[in-house]
Amino acid sequence: MSELTIWTLDWVPKGPRGFVRDLRLRWACEEAGLPYSVRTIPFEGRETNHLSQQPFGQVPFLTDGDLEMFESGAGLMYLARKSETLMPRDPAGEAKTVQWMLAALNSVEIVTLPWWFLDITGAQNNGFSDWTGKRLDQLEKVLAEREWLAEDRFTAADLLMVDVLRVGKVRTLGNRPASEAYIKRVTDRPAFKKAHADQMAHFAAADAKRKNS
Amino acid sequence: MSELTIWTLDWVPKGPRGFVRDLRLRWACEEAGLPYSVRTIPFEGRETNHLSQQPFGQVPFLTDGDLEMFESGAGLMYLARKSETLMPRDPAGEAKTVQWMLAALNSVEIVTLPWWFLDITGAQNNGFSDWTGKRLDQLEKVLAEREWLAEDRFTAADLLMVDVLRVGKVRTLGNRPASEAYIKRVTDRPAFKKAHADQMAHFAAADAKRKNS
Repeated sequence: MSELTIWTLDWVPKGPRGFVRDLRLRWACEEAGLPYSVRTIPFEGRETNHLSQQPFGQVPFLTDGDLEMFESGAGLMYLARKSETLMPRDPAGEAKTVQWMLAALNSVEIVTLPWWFLDITGAQNNGFSDWTGKRLDQLEKVLAEREWLAEDRFTAADLLMVDVLRVGKVRTLGNRPASEAYIKRVTDRPAFKKAHADQMAHFAAADAKRKNS
Repeated sequence: MSELTIWTLDWVPKGPRGFVRDLRLRWACEEAGLPYSVRTIPFEGRETNHLSQQPFGQVPFLTDGDLEMFESGAGLMYLARKSETLMPRDPAGEAKTVQWMLAALNSVEIVTLPWWFLDITGAQNNGFSDWTGKRLDQLEKVLAEREWLAEDRFTAADLLMVDVLRVGKVRTLGNRPASEAYIKRVTDRPAFKKAHADQMAHFAAADAKRKNS
């Protein structure tokens, strides 16, 4: 019996809802048909109260029986190994999936996340919008030639890349039809819609509880 | 017979020498005792000439017979699966190693790399030095309590975290004795020294060739 548990915050403000990274793990479990439950840690004191589980004060973390791990990318890799739906079993398919998962985090998000952060904080002349534009152009060339990143079908690489790309601000930077079609293709999947609706409902329920307390 | 080949640039300016990411893969092969060769692509035209192998125009990429992959993090994970020296075989040890590898890239480098980039480009009021300081403080707390990140011994997680932390600029931001001792402990390893010396020699040899051509 699986004891997969995804840990997230008990409440967040409206802004990040739909983007809290527990979504990556919920979505993966939905794609793979892996049963899981969701548990929470308090939003108040999140930066100091659960450092033994997550030394950077972030969510999510994942437990599977006695096994614990933080970092959504690591949790996603762990889930991907449980399910061929998320990652092929053959060495070439696995290598390509891991490669594109790492590209999503360490070649794309490492540029788009600072760009987004600098944009909302109003930092000037920072060079990150050029860098972000260039990376997104490079990815657009790839996506103009194929529907999925790692294989001829959806894998965890598409899940992670789209979770990086679907951030509103990133989508507004330039016109990239292949990337936009790709984001739509991937977020139209029932597993994404279910995971997204569940996260929104989770935080909406927390609002109701707060009001009543 | 292993046919591991690490691909890097044929030349780079003096600044990045010792930090080009082929080092992560050289170092891993040295730790694991995996035979490998190094091949090159031209520095000139690097952003457009080898996009079929690396769509972001970066190095390194890794080939193992017919298998090809880019992203140093993905290459490192591939090598780690070949060698218990780099990653334990038991599920808990593997999960912790992958977790800390992802933390190095997606919780630490995602903050330190923009900080470094913004610092050299002179962007003002960007908020990244506070963010970098905070992340490094969080990591300092972890390293004050243990010598290695994932296990009671060196793993690929330490290799990757130290490769992120050893960047000169990052080390100058504040005084963190446990982190500094950790960087020294890890970079004192013969495998790091060999890989580093080999990369420096590789680019020095390229200088000599350029002069003669």
